[in-house]
This record gives sequence, C-alpha cells and structure tokens, in this order.
Amino acid sequence: MNATTACCAPIVREPISPADAAELAAALKAVADPVRLRLLSMIGSHPGGEACVCDLTGAFDLSAPTISHHLKTLRVAGLIDSERRGTWVYYRVVPSALARLNTLFTPLAEPANV
Amino acid sequence: MNATTACCAPIVREPISPADAAELAAALKAVADPVRLRLLSMIGSHPGGEACVCDLTGAFDLSAPTISHHLKTLRVAGLIDSERRGTWVYYRVVPSALARLNTLFTPLAEPANV
Repeated sequence: MNATTACCAPIVREPISPADAAELAAALKAVADPVRLRLLSMIGSHPGGEACVCDLTGAFDLSAPTISHHLKTLRVAGLIDSERRGTWVYYRVVPSALARLNTLFTPLAEPANV
Repeated sequence: MNATTACCAPIVREPISPADAAELAAALKAVADPVRLRLLSMIGSHPGGEACVCDLTGAFDLSAPTISHHLKTLRVAGLIDSERRGTWVYYRVVPSALARLNTLFTPLAEPANV
C-alpha cells in the first residue's frame, strides 16, 4: 500500500479504506488531547519553528516527565521530530504530517447551483 | 470568547489557548476512530452529500445499534447533522466543522530562503 498517496484524499471525496482509516485514526488520537494540541501549537509557532522542552514546560501545570510523555506520543505518531543539540532536545512539527491532516479535512467545493 | 474566530487559526501560527484546545480535542476525539472516520467519509462522499443508515451499515461487520452509537458521537461533536424523512434518518457532514479542522492543520508556508 502506498500510504503517501492513499492517505491524501479528502475524507469527503471518496470512502476511506479500512486500512487508511486505522492509520489516520492513530494520528488523530495523538492530537485529540488538549495538552498535545497545545504542545504542537507551541512548537509549530515558536520562532524558528522549533522549541526545546525548556520552552514548553512553563505553560503547563504538569511535571516534566508528563510533558515528555506527551511529546513522545506526538513523536511516535509522526507529528513532531526531535533532535538533541547539547543539553537540550529540540522539537519541530513534521510539515507532511500536518499537511496530511489538512488534506483529510478539505471540504468539498459547493456544488454549482445549476 | 468568540469560538468561531478563535477556533480557526492554524495550529502552527500561534499558541492555541487552553479553552480552544479543550474544545478542539473533543471534536478530534470524535473523529479519531476508524469506524467514525469511515462513516464520515461514506456520508460526505455519498451522491448528494447525504446518506441514510441503510447506506452505511452494509460496509461494516457491526450491529445497527453500534453504527447508530458512532453516528451519535459524530452528531454530538457537531461533525454531522441528521434529518428524519419518512422511514429513514439522513445524515450529512457539517461543512463548517470540516473546514475548522482543515484550517487547524494548515501548514505554515515554507519560509523564503533568503
């Protein structure tokens, strides 16, 4: 299965296959959490498009291990990448993962009123 | 809070507020399920943009009450509308709900390489 092409049809253009639905549901489960949505947003909107854990923990009333666990969930789902540089691990959003969800929810154009 | 405007910034443009994150996570939880993704897709891509339960149950190895439960979850989350006409209930995708998720996952444009 070519997941890259199969994934990218808008959900309302044609019935999604069971295999694609399972794969996309896993990615959506990863973002369907308020803390992880906020983390994704903070990382993606951070100057330079990347953020270290040190930029993220202050906004939450959560322990560092809990934040790390949420970041791992996003990373395993392919939504963010991480890179260690010196003391810190830096995170960035994976543009293709975001684009895939963006396409999935593309509404159909309104039908012409003829 | 004006949810209509607050909701619609792309997730990577600015940090999402805790309130918006909670609201969007609820909508995403509704779609983060393989059966519900398939139902949404089958309804949205059905000729005329609407489908009755009679069009949907055949594709699944699930009981009619289970399908109905999934449809209710999508409806409560505001992703589909329903209308009874005669014997059947017809479902359609709510375009604004889809557009909201579409916008949420809009990737940032690549920065100019200067």
